[in-house]
Amino acid sequence: VAVTGIRALCFDTFGTLVDWRSSLLDELTALAPDVEPDLAAAVVDGWRAAYRPAMTVAREQPVWRDLDALQRETLTTVLTEHGVTLPPVAHETLVQGWRRLRPWPDVRSGLDRLRATHLTATLSNGHVALLVDLLRFGDLRVDVPLSAELAASYKPDPAVYLRAAHLLGVPPAALAMVAAHADDLVAAAAVGLRPVFVRRPLEHGPGAPAPQPPDLPDLLVVDGLEQLATALGA
Amino acid sequence: VAVTGIRALCFDTFGTLVDWRSSLLDELTALAPDVEPDLAAAVVDGWRAAYRPAMTVAREQPVWRDLDALQRETLTTVLTEHGVTLPPVAHETLVQGWRRLRPWPDVRSGLDRLRATHLTATLSNGHVALLVDLLRFGDLRVDVPLSAELAASYKPDPAVYLRAAHLLGVPPAALAMVAAHADDLVAAAAVGLRPVFVRRPLEHGPGAPAPQPPDLPDLLVVDGLEQLATALGA
Repeated sequence: VAVTGIRALCFDTFGTLVDWRSSLLDELTALAPDVEPDLAAAVVDGWRAAYRPAMTVAREQPVWRDLDALQRETLTTVLTEHGVTLPPVAHETLVQGWRRLRPWPDVRSGLDRLRATHLTATLSNGHVALLVDLLRFGDLRVDVPLSAELAASYKPDPAVYLRAAHLLGVPPAALAMVAAHADDLVAAAAVGLRPVFVRRPLEHGPGAPAPQPPDLPDLLVVDGLEQLATALGA
Repeated sequence: VAVTGIRALCFDTFGTLVDWRSSLLDELTALAPDVEPDLAAAVVDGWRAAYRPAMTVAREQPVWRDLDALQRETLTTVLTEHGVTLPPVAHETLVQGWRRLRPWPDVRSGLDRLRATHLTATLSNGHVALLVDLLRFGDLRVDVPLSAELAASYKPDPAVYLRAAHLLGVPPAALAMVAAHADDLVAAAAVGLRPVFVRRPLEHGPGAPAPQPPDLPDLLVVDGLEQLATALGA
């Protein structure tokens, strides 16, 4: 696989840089210790599953709403479905828990290596304020936290990827999209970005199927950001 | 002066964080060693003076143009006025020189101290791609490089300051605008941001008058970012 000509890297965040599942499970367990582990896992997985459809609806609305607003609503629905009740303060604490997701172990050091030779950015459906808090929480350094918010849309809208390339000042062909999710990479590659798949076999928990890479020409597949740094000569 | 309640800080960049004048003089002298020092200074000062009116015009245009595009035009005008000719490659190198401006000596350490206790951002008329390069050049770390570009306008348009507060997720009253220029602070304070004036007596060179603080209620005046960090308890 050719990896030359890449000047900038943008990173999907939830699942790719940070482990949302185990972090949110810990948050929920701390807030509601009486909820059984299996039920807590069903709530967290259901909440995450509600994220995509909520964004698909939100993308079509005239007024852009941020991820906090969407997650607040979908959490209410998911808790009701599972018969779990949380006091309002705990509900909001859990929504804010998306700012306290732990990075995968290779991420901090991998980002530092990659930033030495490449422009680095997030490219997340999380809004800028959330990303700033999340990066501070994990002490992760990128050159600029970019968000779908800056295109007033959500991935996989092509406008989000093109806006990132424009803001970084690079042509799409010099920008790699680094993600653990096939749909993100398919959409990015469709507008000319270079796809890099990061294997995160534990994203959906131990025992759950590992996310699989898309079938794309010139796809680079790596096991983590340290391996990506090595592949790019960083 | 009350300095409580400030959760985030945004920093003007050219003049406040970095020394544009001595940096650009060095760039021009390296590109055109035959130009006398006084003439080189007149070109650089004239170029900087052409920046404000160019942005005022640009703000009214339907299509937003970035600082590179504006500076490319104003440099042509200023060189012609002073009878200086530069080859096209040198002309573009000088335009790109705004990405290689040296930080004032207190900036790197001051930003690090302030970031430990506050959200930090630039808020510059330079576009995001330029700011990313400039921050990398000086090894300066902020949580997010914010730009007037993200409001598709230029300071002192009120929309630029309000967009920064929104993207940082803080109310204007919890956001300080830190700048070495009175007009920037007057505009920021008019929409509710907290004004902090940084003295940069050498901005316009040795012997030139030092920029003076505006007459604003609750203005905090500091000699640099280290002093600001101390004032804010960072």
